[in-house]
Amino acid sequence: MSTNWQEIIAAVDRALDGYLPPADTFPPDICRAVRYSVFAGGKRLRPLLVITTAGIFDVPLQHALPAACAIEMIHTYSLIHDDLPALDNDDYRRGLAANHKVFGEAMAILAGDALLTAAFETLSIEAPAYFPPNIVVALIQEISRAAGISGMIGGQVVDILSEGRSVQPDVLEYIHRHKTGALITCCVRCGARMGQAAPEQLQALTAYGEKVGLAFQIVDDILDIVGDEAVLGKKTGADASKKKVTYPAVYGLEKARAEANSLYKSALADLAPFGGAAAGLKELAGMLINRIK
Amino acid sequence: MSTNWQEIIAAVDRALDGYLPPADTFPPDICRAVRYSVFAGGKRLRPLLVITTAGIFDVPLQHALPAACAIEMIHTYSLIHDDLPALDNDDYRRGLAANHKVFGEAMAILAGDALLTAAFETLSIEAPAYFPPNIVVALIQEISRAAGISGMIGGQVVDILSEGRSVQPDVLEYIHRHKTGALITCCVRCGARMGQAAPEQLQALTAYGEKVGLAFQIVDDILDIVGDEAVLGKKTGADASKKKVTYPAVYGLEKARAEANSLYKSALADLAPFGGAAAGLKELAGMLINRIK
Repeated sequence: MSTNWQEIIAAVDRALDGYLPPADTFPPDICRAVRYSVFAGGKRLRPLLVITTAGIFDVPLQHALPAACAIEMIHTYSLIHDDLPALDNDDYRRGLAANHKVFGEAMAILAGDALLTAAFETLSIEAPAYFPPNIVVALIQEISRAAGISGMIGGQVVDILSEGRSVQPDVLEYIHRHKTGALITCCVRCGARMGQAAPEQLQALTAYGEKVGLAFQIVDDILDIVGDEAVLGKKTGADASKKKVTYPAVYGLEKARAEANSLYKSALADLAPFGGAAAGLKELAGMLINRIK
Repeated sequence: MSTNWQEIIAAVDRALDGYLPPADTFPPDICRAVRYSVFAGGKRLRPLLVITTAGIFDVPLQHALPAACAIEMIHTYSLIHDDLPALDNDDYRRGLAANHKVFGEAMAILAGDALLTAAFETLSIEAPAYFPPNIVVALIQEISRAAGISGMIGGQVVDILSEGRSVQPDVLEYIHRHKTGALITCCVRCGARMGQAAPEQLQALTAYGEKVGLAFQIVDDILDIVGDEAVLGKKTGADASKKKVTYPAVYGLEKARAEANSLYKSALADLAPFGGAAAGLKELAGMLINRIK
C-alpha cells in the first residue's frame, strides 16, 4: 500500500475519532463498545473509495470525510450485528474478539444501532460545512437506500435464509450484489455526488462500483477457503461449516477466480473516460482483487 | 379521542403503508417483519405531536407526514430491539407476540435495523417534495441526535445497566429524559422546524416537549403497577420483576402521580404564547396524562 493511502487512512481515523463521542462520554459503556469495533483494524476500503472518487472531481479530502466516515460507521454496525449469536454467531473479527463477546449481546445490539444512527448524525451535522444542503440530502438518499432493505439489509436477509439450502445462481448474485455490493457502489456514487459528476460520469462510476463490489465479495469467499488464518485474523472454512452460499461453492474455485478477474478488467474499462484522473480508483481495484486479507 | 385525531392517525397509517416496501417485496420475510410491528396497534402519539405542532405554523398535514412517519419508524425499531431476549426479553407487545417471537431473533434484529434505516430514507427522499433542502437537513439533524447515544440509545443503555441496582434520582431522570423524552421532544422540535418557528417559539415548544415526555414515562411506570392488563395488552408488574428503575419505585405512587400532574400543568403554561393555536397540543398533553394504556 502506498504512503498516500496510509495518509488518507490516518485522516479517516482522525475524523472518526472526532465524530464519535469520546470514550468517557456518559454513558461510557456504549461509547467504548462503539469505539472498540470502529478502531478494530478495518481496512477502511470504503472511505478510500469515497475519497478517491471525490478526488477525481477535485473535492478536497477534508470535505469527503463526513460521507466516508458515515459509510464506515454503517459498515461497522453491520459487522457487529452480523457477528451476533442470532445471526452468524462469530466470536472473532479481524483477530479480535467480536463486539458481543467483549461487551455482551445487549450492548452489541445497541452499539450497532448507535453507529447506524451516528452515520446520519455525521452526514447531517458535518457535511453541511462543505456542501450545499441539496448535496447533503443527496448523500443521505444514496446511503440510506444502499444500507436498507433494497440494499445491504436485503442481502443479509437472503444470505441468512439461504444458509444450508441449495440456491440458484441468481440468488447467489442477489446476496453478493446487495450484502456487500450495494454499500461499495454507494461509496463511489457518494464521491461522484460530492463532485457534482455529470449523469454519464455517475453512470460509469456506478458500473465500476458494482463490478468492484461483486469482485470484492468473490475474493472474500475465495479467501475463506484458501486464505491464511493468521493474516485474515479469523478462521477460514467458516462459510463451508455454516453452509453459506458462496461463489466458489456454486462454481468452484477456478471459475470464481476467473470471474473476479474478469470483473476487475471490466471495472477498469469503465474508468477509461476519466483517463489519468482515475489512477487511484484503478489502484484500489487492483488492491481489492489481489488482497490476501 | 376526537374524530380529528382519528383522521390524522388514518393519514399516518396510509403514509407509513406507502413509504414502507409492500409486504411481497423481495425479500418478503423482512418486509413482513417490518410491517408486523409498524401496524401492531401503536397509538401514533409521536406522529400526532409532529403534525399538531407543525399545524400551529400552518404546515399542511401532508407535508408533515414524512417526518412524522420517520419518527414512528424509529420508535418502532426501538421497541423491536428492546423486546429481544438479550435486552428486555419481552414476549408480548400491545397484546401481540413480540416481533422476535413471530419472526425469530435474527429477523427481528434486521427488521429493527431496516426501520431505523428506512426513517432516514423516508426523510431524505419524501420530505424534499415539501421543504427546501436546508429544512430537510435540519430535520435529519434533530432526529439523528434524538435517536442516538446522546438521546434514546443513551437512555436505553443506562436503563439496562441500572436494572436491579439502587440508583440515584438523577440517574432515574437521565433514563426517562433520554429513553423516552428525547424522541418525544424531537417530535415537537421537528414540527417547529418545518414551520420555521422563531427561536423563542422553538424554545417554548422544546420546554413543552421535555415536560410532556417525562410525564409520559412517569404515567407509563404508573400503569405498569396499577394498569389493566387487558387494556394495556401486556403484563403489568414487568418493571418490578425486572427490577427496573422507575419513578414510582423511587418516589412512591402518590408522589409519581403528583409529579406527572405538575409537569402537565407546567407544559400547558409553556404553550401560553401560542394562544388558541396550541389547543391541539394541550389536548394531546391531556390525553397523555390521563391515558389508561
